[in-house]
Amino acid sequence: MTDYIDSVPLEKAYRLLTHGPTVLVSSRHNGVDNVMAAAWSCALDFAPPKVTVVIDKITATRALVEGSGMFVLQVPTVAQLQLTEQLGTTSLATEPDKLQRAQAELFHIDGHDLPFVAGCSAWLACRLVPEPHNQQTYDLFIGEVVGAWSDTRAFKDGHWQFEHADPAWRSLHHVAGGHFYAIGEALTVMPEK
Amino acid sequence: MTDYIDSVPLEKAYRLLTHGPTVLVSSRHNGVDNVMAAAWSCALDFAPPKVTVVIDKITATRALVEGSGMFVLQVPTVAQLQLTEQLGTTSLATEPDKLQRAQAELFHIDGHDLPFVAGCSAWLACRLVPEPHNQQTYDLFIGEVVGAWSDTRAFKDGHWQFEHADPAWRSLHHVAGGHFYAIGEALTVMPEK
Repeated sequence: MTDYIDSVPLEKAYRLLTHGPTVLVSSRHNGVDNVMAAAWSCALDFAPPKVTVVIDKITATRALVEGSGMFVLQVPTVAQLQLTEQLGTTSLATEPDKLQRAQAELFHIDGHDLPFVAGCSAWLACRLVPEPHNQQTYDLFIGEVVGAWSDTRAFKDGHWQFEHADPAWRSLHHVAGGHFYAIGEALTVMPEK
Repeated sequence: MTDYIDSVPLEKAYRLLTHGPTVLVSSRHNGVDNVMAAAWSCALDFAPPKVTVVIDKITATRALVEGSGMFVLQVPTVAQLQLTEQLGTTSLATEPDKLQRAQAELFHIDGHDLPFVAGCSAWLACRLVPEPHNQQTYDLFIGEVVGAWSDTRAFKDGHWQFEHADPAWRSLHHVAGGHFYAIGEALTVMPEK
């Protein structure tokens, strides 16, 4: 954990996802850690903060999430483009050394028995809100955010800093097949006359 | 409907939302049309294509969606920043002339009795997949995409054209309180060595 990582108040945690970035989903169960990429994740509620994420039945991460009832959504950066793609296109089921090969570095945050991926811009520790029908029918998982952190070089005082930060901190927005967009310029609505 | 609007194959429809844009939700019921902005919308499935969108109980649009079982998700552009903010911060319940005041122009697509918002880059006509528990507990609505269209100046041949198009076509990504980011530069993963 670097000096730059700071906790984010839970009432601001939705802002880490509202702009629609691709996320990394990590989980730990019975001594096994894994991380996958997910393009289909979304904020769901403000208080208590909740999120949704679509996790396919073929993923190895899904069993860890269902087994432990806990997961982390973290926001990878432009600097982690290759890492994100690799974590999203390989499976622990067929490549037991997936994380090492992708050079994914995990770190610890006190009070949370979860694998956090180093180098990301934000982390949301989530407790699974069990909804078996959604999970089985739609691969749709709901999490309640129980802890949130950001790298203050990318997100500070409740706001993304993309317009001031090194472009390498920008979030990734997947479209299809290894094609992403970085988040772009800031826009602010003018007050109505 | 302009010459530039073309249908999008349903198997590519998820790409219109996967990069996480703010959307406009429109619906029609009993002769009433309305449009609201929603930051929390997400792709859910490829085939048949499905989407999620969070629609608060205080919104007037929600009653139209529940009453008609149909809605449109459309992707507004940088050129529609003020329109998007205004549609997201006013309610038909208190401002019956909301759409006129926002200068929202609606248009028709044959075969769909739905209000489509002109000037957007993409439109997804959706049939509500009723899930009363999700709707009541989480304000979470699931739609099956039954038709998709794009303005080919922004999305063509199954791909967003942001890197070639006028920046005014870029999608909006809301963070909080009138602050948005436009989508940014294109990034493509290098093949693994």
